[in-house]
Amino acid sequence: MFEQIIKTNTFEPILIHKALGSWIWDTDGKKYLDCVSGMWCVNLGHNHPKVIQATKNQLDEIIHRNKSFLTPITLKAANTVLNYMPTNFDKLTFLNSGSEAMEFAISFAKKVTKKEKVLSLQDSYLGAFGKAKESSYTSLDKTDMKIPYPVCYEESCNCLENTQLAVDEILDGIISQIACFVLEPVMVSGGVFKPCSQFIQYICDKIQSDGGLIVLDEVTTGLGRTGKKFGYEHLGIKPDVVVLGKALGNGYPVSAIITTSDHEAKCSYPEFYYAQSHQLDPLGAAVAKEVISVFEKDSIIEKNQSTILELNQFFKSLKYVFIEEVRSVGMIFALKLKNYKNYKEEELVVKIKDDLLEEGVIVGFNVAKGLLRLLPPLTLSMDEALFLMKKIKKVLEAIN
Amino acid sequence: MFEQIIKTNTFEPILIHKALGSWIWDTDGKKYLDCVSGMWCVNLGHNHPKVIQATKNQLDEIIHRNKSFLTPITLKAANTVLNYMPTNFDKLTFLNSGSEAMEFAISFAKKVTKKEKVLSLQDSYLGAFGKAKESSYTSLDKTDMKIPYPVCYEESCNCLENTQLAVDEILDGIISQIACFVLEPVMVSGGVFKPCSQFIQYICDKIQSDGGLIVLDEVTTGLGRTGKKFGYEHLGIKPDVVVLGKALGNGYPVSAIITTSDHEAKCSYPEFYYAQSHQLDPLGAAVAKEVISVFEKDSIIEKNQSTILELNQFFKSLKYVFIEEVRSVGMIFALKLKNYKNYKEEELVVKIKDDLLEEGVIVGFNVAKGLLRLLPPLTLSMDEALFLMKKIKKVLEAIN
Repeated sequence: MFEQIIKTNTFEPILIHKALGSWIWDTDGKKYLDCVSGMWCVNLGHNHPKVIQATKNQLDEIIHRNKSFLTPITLKAANTVLNYMPTNFDKLTFLNSGSEAMEFAISFAKKVTKKEKVLSLQDSYLGAFGKAKESSYTSLDKTDMKIPYPVCYEESCNCLENTQLAVDEILDGIISQIACFVLEPVMVSGGVFKPCSQFIQYICDKIQSDGGLIVLDEVTTGLGRTGKKFGYEHLGIKPDVVVLGKALGNGYPVSAIITTSDHEAKCSYPEFYYAQSHQLDPLGAAVAKEVISVFEKDSIIEKNQSTILELNQFFKSLKYVFIEEVRSVGMIFALKLKNYKNYKEEELVVKIKDDLLEEGVIVGFNVAKGLLRLLPPLTLSMDEALFLMKKIKKVLEAIN
Repeated sequence: MFEQIIKTNTFEPILIHKALGSWIWDTDGKKYLDCVSGMWCVNLGHNHPKVIQATKNQLDEIIHRNKSFLTPITLKAANTVLNYMPTNFDKLTFLNSGSEAMEFAISFAKKVTKKEKVLSLQDSYLGAFGKAKESSYTSLDKTDMKIPYPVCYEESCNCLENTQLAVDEILDGIISQIACFVLEPVMVSGGVFKPCSQFIQYICDKIQSDGGLIVLDEVTTGLGRTGKKFGYEHLGIKPDVVVLGKALGNGYPVSAIITTSDHEAKCSYPEFYYAQSHQLDPLGAAVAKEVISVFEKDSIIEKNQSTILELNQFFKSLKYVFIEEVRSVGMIFALKLKNYKNYKEEELVVKIKDDLLEEGVIVGFNVAKGLLRLLPPLTLSMDEALFLMKKIKKVLEAIN
């Protein structure tokens, strides 16, 4: 099946051909509630009419140009994104993928600081290749530079006291060599873990005091996914570089690296040169501009709060012995499963995913982590949320 | 100017807002003949009506989905691309950028061969980051693995005899460790150099006999740029992996990695996992499918031959003392300049580029290499070619 495609992951044995809002349709006409928002990208729902229209309008004008030429829509989109940021930023560039943007951000941080080392948290996923991948849990490279961290959702906690000595020990010898601390505000790919904010503030203070940069990977968490505009708003930190991807294009490949003129002054042409075929292209810019505009005009994040509460209550209320833990941040929900009856943990993951697909619900899954993961569109309606909850109850009850 | 954009290269002090065919328009209404095809991408001309229409049609259906689901248009696009290849290939995947696709191809070759070293030619440009960048002339990493080569356009030559010993010396100690020879059929970014085909055949034979792969970077040369469908058709070799980008999307960000089921059998999920937000997305696939279809139905490459001849004759006929050399392959033309009167080589490059821009012609330039470079759309009409030749004559005469 699908014999012409390099098998880079598993494919479901169906073909899909249409998408709208929270739903996708297969070629037999069956519809599915897409609770993974594509690849965690369509925070506004599939084929959002305003975004599609803005894309078509730009297709009538200009979609691509040489790197030496800028377009008005690119400048407007840059202003729109910069104005949307909760802390002060005044410089950006647009690329296509989050991974490439992270790679750019790390190179940028190295140039700005004239340092080489990259610090990350141990469950981070920062990119599909290069230094960003090396700094991720998916890399076999296990070094001091991937540090353990406490998970904590509390306002006041003892996390920092309990870990400070260990952190100091790791950092003190090398802190002067650290170019950047590269951080996901919630490690979604890594298992849906939110690091303790006091712990993160402590590390960020240390790194920034020593001239290192804080690079925020908001590729998954940015644009409302965590219940706020950006994940770093939960952490009380002031990043030097923010990277956006996924939701910025709502299904179209556009990403952004956002920073300040102070940093850019230490790292721009001719000392720092970067050119990619579609960097700053007007089509991606037009999409990004419209996406941010929809977030603002349609109060997407504000309206999403009640759905988050409803779903959070629902998932936290699930009491099955095969559910080891429920994790949630904003519109991100995860069920950590465990062995049950004749099912091994990993079999249970696949069974529940398959049963839900049969029922018309698409959920994410990570077999190795024993995890089911849901990141529905932020525009999920209450009716759709009720449909989701009903189907989950049905499938879990049948296993119980 | 453009104070909100990270300065990753120089920007011309104009804004453009419309593009069609060989032309782009600035916001003052002045039009320019785009002799760099954007970023060497719009081989079919800007905003090709059939490609734009196919994009809009797909925007009405589905643009994006989760990695676990495939769409009919993706499978059709894969078949279309595979059928278009001049040698046997039966597997591919789609990504967004040529750089990422090259990075994928190198990782793939390492997994297939279980070897680590990457061989490239000394003037290659293979990508903006990662291992592909390290193997490029833009990296400071100068090793044996970037080998010198003879430039040659002849059918029979002495290139191989003259260089064979040197090549053997470089390769013989390390050939068993080489995962892949990564090759541009014409090094366009490196200076418009076409390596001798006998020399390349000799290296490819050695590498493939020892189990290494030949990875063809056709990001710039693919889809007619060199006067044939693919650059490797000039070289008489049989690559294991071909990477396409740029022209495959004609301005839209889509790239492809193309290989065989024999190789994929040694490198696929679960041993090899790769996931990127927009990998195999239906929007990029729809674009790629339509681009190839236009190439075939409209006989783009066949019709382009007379323009290539005309422009080639013109450039070869330019006799100015400040032109050190004219280089050309297919629809790629370069003028290597030298110091003249009060002008240093690099000043002359900028002056001619600026004077042509003033005259309504956009050409590429590389100051460090003393090079002007033209890669017009393959759809350039004879009238447009005449306009270009007239403007070049005018600007060069004024300097003489």
